[in-house]
Amino acid sequence: MGLIGASFLRSARLRLPSTALSAWSRSPSSARVTADVAEPRATPAEAARDAECVVLAAPVDAFPALLAEISPSLQPGAWVTDVGSTKRGAHAAAERLLRDPSRFVGGHPMAGSEKNGAAEARADLFEGRPCIVTSTPRTSADVRRSASALWNSLGGRAVEMTPEEHDRVVAEISHLPHAVASLLAALLAGRRPRTDLAAGGLRDTTRVAAGDPDLWVPILMENADQVAPLLGILSAEADRLRGLLVAGDAAGVRAHLESARGFRRSL
Amino acid sequence: MGLIGASFLRSARLRLPSTALSAWSRSPSSARVTADVAEPRATPAEAARDAECVVLAAPVDAFPALLAEISPSLQPGAWVTDVGSTKRGAHAAAERLLRDPSRFVGGHPMAGSEKNGAAEARADLFEGRPCIVTSTPRTSADVRRSASALWNSLGGRAVEMTPEEHDRVVAEISHLPHAVASLLAALLAGRRPRTDLAAGGLRDTTRVAAGDPDLWVPILMENADQVAPLLGILSAEADRLRGLLVAGDAAGVRAHLESARGFRRSL
Repeated sequence: MGLIGASFLRSARLRLPSTALSAWSRSPSSARVTADVAEPRATPAEAARDAECVVLAAPVDAFPALLAEISPSLQPGAWVTDVGSTKRGAHAAAERLLRDPSRFVGGHPMAGSEKNGAAEARADLFEGRPCIVTSTPRTSADVRRSASALWNSLGGRAVEMTPEEHDRVVAEISHLPHAVASLLAALLAGRRPRTDLAAGGLRDTTRVAAGDPDLWVPILMENADQVAPLLGILSAEADRLRGLLVAGDAAGVRAHLESARGFRRSL
Repeated sequence: MGLIGASFLRSARLRLPSTALSAWSRSPSSARVTADVAEPRATPAEAARDAECVVLAAPVDAFPALLAEISPSLQPGAWVTDVGSTKRGAHAAAERLLRDPSRFVGGHPMAGSEKNGAAEARADLFEGRPCIVTSTPRTSADVRRSASALWNSLGGRAVEMTPEEHDRVVAEISHLPHAVASLLAALLAGRRPRTDLAAGGLRDTTRVAAGDPDLWVPILMENADQVAPLLGILSAEADRLRGLLVAGDAAGVRAHLESARGFRRSL
């Protein structure tokens, strides 16, 4: 349990005060950090045993083991969701590992930070944020509605789509920006630049590269089929811009920068 | 005169209260915005005529015309500097166009914003910021010292180097980040992504791409020999990361992200 899981608990404690909350965390320190808002349990199965709703808030490559562990102890009617940044993998794991996969619905709050860890949690992290809820034709409609209602009740704005649509959309607006920031940071890491002289642009452009590789390696691997083609385009465009500079093509460079500026101003 | 020029005037008015300030701006609205701190003059030559120090705060490709225009009206002993983001070009123009090129010293405050325009000016823009001062063997030592003292007196931290060193250093910490942000933004501009769902990462990673092409086209063109090779490396690294994703090489992706994170955390 890190930033998102602990923020979920703090937000739920605040906004759903009569709801009983229990939690398991692999890290004892994370469990301590949330002990004031959620009853600590010793294992994932114990945390899930009497739950109406189970939320997986772990790196996406941990979902299969967690699902396998909680599946036997789930109450009839309980539903399971997650907060991971890829969704086809989560649904596939649920199909494979839950006794009733119709009770799984995907979740991805578009909130967070390069800061990691339960200690950074904020009860208002989801306020006004889009929270994507993913379902397949096999997902129970009541589970899908419950997931959307849950995120809305935490101050978020539920947006429903398929896991495939999620992974395509989020590759563009989150995974590619993360990859780009990491490319710039890793390139400069090898060159010992004069960062003591840098203005805010370098900090902003690389901010998300501070994200935790334990979270981001599995995200990029699971969504590789969406992210890799975008990196191919990026590589070609970087080479095209290089060519414009070498050729002294100011008009071409201007067209590039105008397009970029138009996009940024539309945000 | 935009953000930097107008901030220079506001800062100088505040910190050097007994200094007479006059200004010319191509844009009448910019001239009006700074009329409370600097006496407006009708032409560059008039603004420079009785000056002890002249500061060029214009897109770097405007320097030759401005230098040619002010050179005949400069007082003996006056010195000239600038605030542009490339320095070899500024020194070359001064060598060619000033009657006494030893009175030119380059300047580049590492401050600013994606916001443009004199109306965004802030008297504290340079506070605590590195302000690069560039000189060649032909620059008068007293002019170099005066430039460093000027930036220090405005709250900045003068850092002296050659124009060549400046252009190499700044290509890495400013021009490449700008190019990278613009590549991401321009790539996404062509795809109509779901920006309504984006979290802060997309905004941060593309922030500087909102910068004014009137400033940035000449910067990238003047420093093309430094920026183009970096874009070549970026292109190759993007393709390498793409390959790691396609190959399912999680260890390779992790090594990449760890390197990027280490750099970002060092900032």
